[in-house]
Amino acid sequence: MALEGKLLIGLQAVTGTRVNIQATNPSTGELLEPVYVGGDRSHVEQATQLAWDAFDTYRETSLEARATFLETIANEIEAIGDELIERAMAESGLPQARLAGERGRTCGQLRLFASVVRAGEWLDVRIDPAMPDRQPLPRADLRQRHIALGPVAVFGASNFPLAFSVAGGDTASALAAGCPVIVKGHSAHPGTSELVGRAIQKAVKACNLPEGVFSLLFGSGNEIGQALVTDPRIQAVGFTGSRSGGTALMQAAQNRPQPIPVYAEMSSINPVFLLPEALKANSQALGEAFVSSLNMGAGQFCTSPGLVIAVKGSDLDSFIQSAQKAVEGSGAQTMLTPGIHEAYQKGVSALSDEANVREIARGETGSGSYQCQTGLFATSASDFLASTVLQEEVFGASSLIIECQDMAEVKRVAEQLEGQLTATLHMNDGDVDAAKGLIPTLERKAGRILANGWPTGVEVCHAMVHGGPYPSTSDSRTTSVGTAAIKRFLRPVCYQSLPEALLPEALKEANPLKVSRLVDGKREA
Amino acid sequence: MALEGKLLIGLQAVTGTRVNIQATNPSTGELLEPVYVGGDRSHVEQATQLAWDAFDTYRETSLEARATFLETIANEIEAIGDELIERAMAESGLPQARLAGERGRTCGQLRLFASVVRAGEWLDVRIDPAMPDRQPLPRADLRQRHIALGPVAVFGASNFPLAFSVAGGDTASALAAGCPVIVKGHSAHPGTSELVGRAIQKAVKACNLPEGVFSLLFGSGNEIGQALVTDPRIQAVGFTGSRSGGTALMQAAQNRPQPIPVYAEMSSINPVFLLPEALKANSQALGEAFVSSLNMGAGQFCTSPGLVIAVKGSDLDSFIQSAQKAVEGSGAQTMLTPGIHEAYQKGVSALSDEANVREIARGETGSGSYQCQTGLFATSASDFLASTVLQEEVFGASSLIIECQDMAEVKRVAEQLEGQLTATLHMNDGDVDAAKGLIPTLERKAGRILANGWPTGVEVCHAMVHGGPYPSTSDSRTTSVGTAAIKRFLRPVCYQSLPEALLPEALKEANPLKVSRLVDGKREA
Repeated sequence: MALEGKLLIGLQAVTGTRVNIQATNPSTGELLEPVYVGGDRSHVEQATQLAWDAFDTYRETSLEARATFLETIANEIEAIGDELIERAMAESGLPQARLAGERGRTCGQLRLFASVVRAGEWLDVRIDPAMPDRQPLPRADLRQRHIALGPVAVFGASNFPLAFSVAGGDTASALAAGCPVIVKGHSAHPGTSELVGRAIQKAVKACNLPEGVFSLLFGSGNEIGQALVTDPRIQAVGFTGSRSGGTALMQAAQNRPQPIPVYAEMSSINPVFLLPEALKANSQALGEAFVSSLNMGAGQFCTSPGLVIAVKGSDLDSFIQSAQKAVEGSGAQTMLTPGIHEAYQKGVSALSDEANVREIARGETGSGSYQCQTGLFATSASDFLASTVLQEEVFGASSLIIECQDMAEVKRVAEQLEGQLTATLHMNDGDVDAAKGLIPTLERKAGRILANGWPTGVEVCHAMVHGGPYPSTSDSRTTSVGTAAIKRFLRPVCYQSLPEALLPEALKEANPLKVSRLVDGKREA
Repeated sequence: MALEGKLLIGLQAVTGTRVNIQATNPSTGELLEPVYVGGDRSHVEQATQLAWDAFDTYRETSLEARATFLETIANEIEAIGDELIERAMAESGLPQARLAGERGRTCGQLRLFASVVRAGEWLDVRIDPAMPDRQPLPRADLRQRHIALGPVAVFGASNFPLAFSVAGGDTASALAAGCPVIVKGHSAHPGTSELVGRAIQKAVKACNLPEGVFSLLFGSGNEIGQALVTDPRIQAVGFTGSRSGGTALMQAAQNRPQPIPVYAEMSSINPVFLLPEALKANSQALGEAFVSSLNMGAGQFCTSPGLVIAVKGSDLDSFIQSAQKAVEGSGAQTMLTPGIHEAYQKGVSALSDEANVREIARGETGSGSYQCQTGLFATSASDFLASTVLQEEVFGASSLIIECQDMAEVKRVAEQLEGQLTATLHMNDGDVDAAKGLIPTLERKAGRILANGWPTGVEVCHAMVHGGPYPSTSDSRTTSVGTAAIKRFLRPVCYQSLPEALLPEALKEANPLKVSRLVDGKREA
């Protein structure tokens, strides 16, 4: 398909009026055609009005129709074929296999949400039947279901140009909830975004849905992003990106005449705790596995292990030696954008410059301009505890080892951490008591606790939590990956004494949708 | 029990240092002993530190222990006996029967949350078993449960000195979720608050819980309220009160280094739509029933029907005549506080002064200083649509009838309404199509939609939604009444590959808590 460099507003393709956006191939430095001309406030206005007009119809589509729509999007994305992978490779510098896997994840995610829509658990149907004879007062018939919040603005991430972008988890879960979606495409991969956006347009058309169900805009964050978040028709925001970007959206959303929820997935350094017995038994292998996790996607994962915490001694020294060797043998990898590469260089330099931080190893330098040279550093727990700089995320393959005096100091470090997406324990049977001592702290700090694995790799399933206390996300009550992500875009409505003819399908007495219901507080399967 | 006028911090009773707070009996104007000396920041500091220290223990109490605690609070409140009702009557001007009913509601609510805790639905247990042989990558064992957010600050309301105050819905649901609670008692009923606070202290002691599970502070909103909401240990806020009070808390919570959720239930005018056929069939009886709902609690209900919308004509005229008669025969009722009475007088005067608003009727004037004289007004839809003043809540027994040209204008009025707690339809079989045309709008505007009833009277049950779009609440995704209120104080945590010994009880393979689980996306009853 010939890319056109246009905004996709409903079923139209529209030429913008503002800034020129052009992707750079980070492997070669070359600019990629076409130029995307950014939109202005009038394009936001068109897209949000179409979304608003579509909302009441789309939110009441049948479970089957909505599920089919999500599956059709997946089919249309697959139908793009190799062109999608090639364009994403050119725009991101990520390798073919990774992007093919990410496409599989993206389409699998859409199909999983289709199954979620059909199952109807998200409706959270509750029925308290009337009790006309109750004393001293009768009870009315009360029924609750969840409905969609309204049009949602989604800000795609740079680091997963498919799975966290135009048809990524935010879009899939918002569409599943019944919300029209307007995506502000990431300027690093506009061509990939256009391809996926066109696929969604086709699905909208094929499923005979109102065109406003989906739009894709490009433009500056200050203009298009702020206009979207402050538009009165937008009712929620999904965002994956930097802490500064996320907090700016939170502020804008909160200062609206009607504040709206922002689901921002921001920064996390994902502490890994090496407990004494596991470290003693397995220091070499742990060192290698750690660096392998650190290098995934050039460290450009939200869940990259940026912090390793352990009691110092010969076992930790052995882990460090093993990790050092692995880092020194780490090939350079192209980073996503020149800007991300520059920020990584600065972050690593800042770590190196810290008086009490020592460099353990650096990886191979690459020949490309925007390559990531893996970095591993170490410091003492007391220096870490005294510093705020050392807790800042360095986005890319860089990690810091914290050497503690004893388990009490390990716990003090854990207690001082900011909110995290993940916390990892390496442990064996002899570490159970030590682990038990840490878990209450980790539960307060992180959305996901892992044992004997690595935080990179976020399964798309029902039990996943890709979320966590601030600043890892803006809202610890939610997840942006996995089927529970749909809850972010729903609100409950109670229907009291409505005649059967007016009740939504989900609440009719005979349960025509065959959904799980809580009747008088008891679960009907 | 002799009231002491002290702050209850953990198991202690402490004398404050700041403003003197003394309740006024609104029926007589007399000041009620004792004087409550408001706390300062150091008292907030003590209470939040105790709450923080109690948190990890309290949130992991067994379901049975936590349920028993809630039931013990209910028992202790009942054990206070007549003294509680008498003090609440003196502090609120509300009649005996109403307060006895409210005590029943408050204790019933605590017992209902005990049953909710035991049932464990709130844990939202999800299990995705490991798939070690899955291609291309194995899946780890992933399990999700919900845990408590952390210590919660609760701001009691004036209008329900028991059910929305110290041991009201916010406290009951937060304690049920596993959150320690610090209540800032309402200055209008400090004695009632102390009595209930002492009952909770006794329950904490009887159940051998850490004392920080509960504290009760008095003081100025600017000092104590702001200090509570900005304390880093507080993780959520529950509030029932005015729009200005709620939005101030929202702002303070959002400007913290770590923003936290605020659940503020604020203002609502609760539109009632009289559809043509129902109005034709029943105008007289509807007029009487409407005024009876309007007069409940001197109109001091969050769900008081402040707006009636119908197509003009002889049927509406007949409704208005009936309502006029009922209003003229409405006895004066004592309002909760001198301040509320003053605000009511101002609100009603402002309505009277509007050029395009006509007074239909006023109720009887009373002999007391702080009595509410019921007010009923009318205006045209076009004037209503052109005004922002007419949508403002007048807290108390005042309502405005909107006369529309036709159903299209009824719908335009509905579409322009702000967010509401409730929307009511009076309808019969001939109105089904008209009702269908309104429902999509009402679903977007309100948390609860009723047919052929009145919005006053909020059932405490599983399906209730006492919530709604801004400004009726700060967060339309939640309810502050009913068992779903517990969700406000929870967040999900995912456990990946944790050994059985480290898994929380709720997630152990054998399901020892016998809770409903979503296994691989399928509901196990």
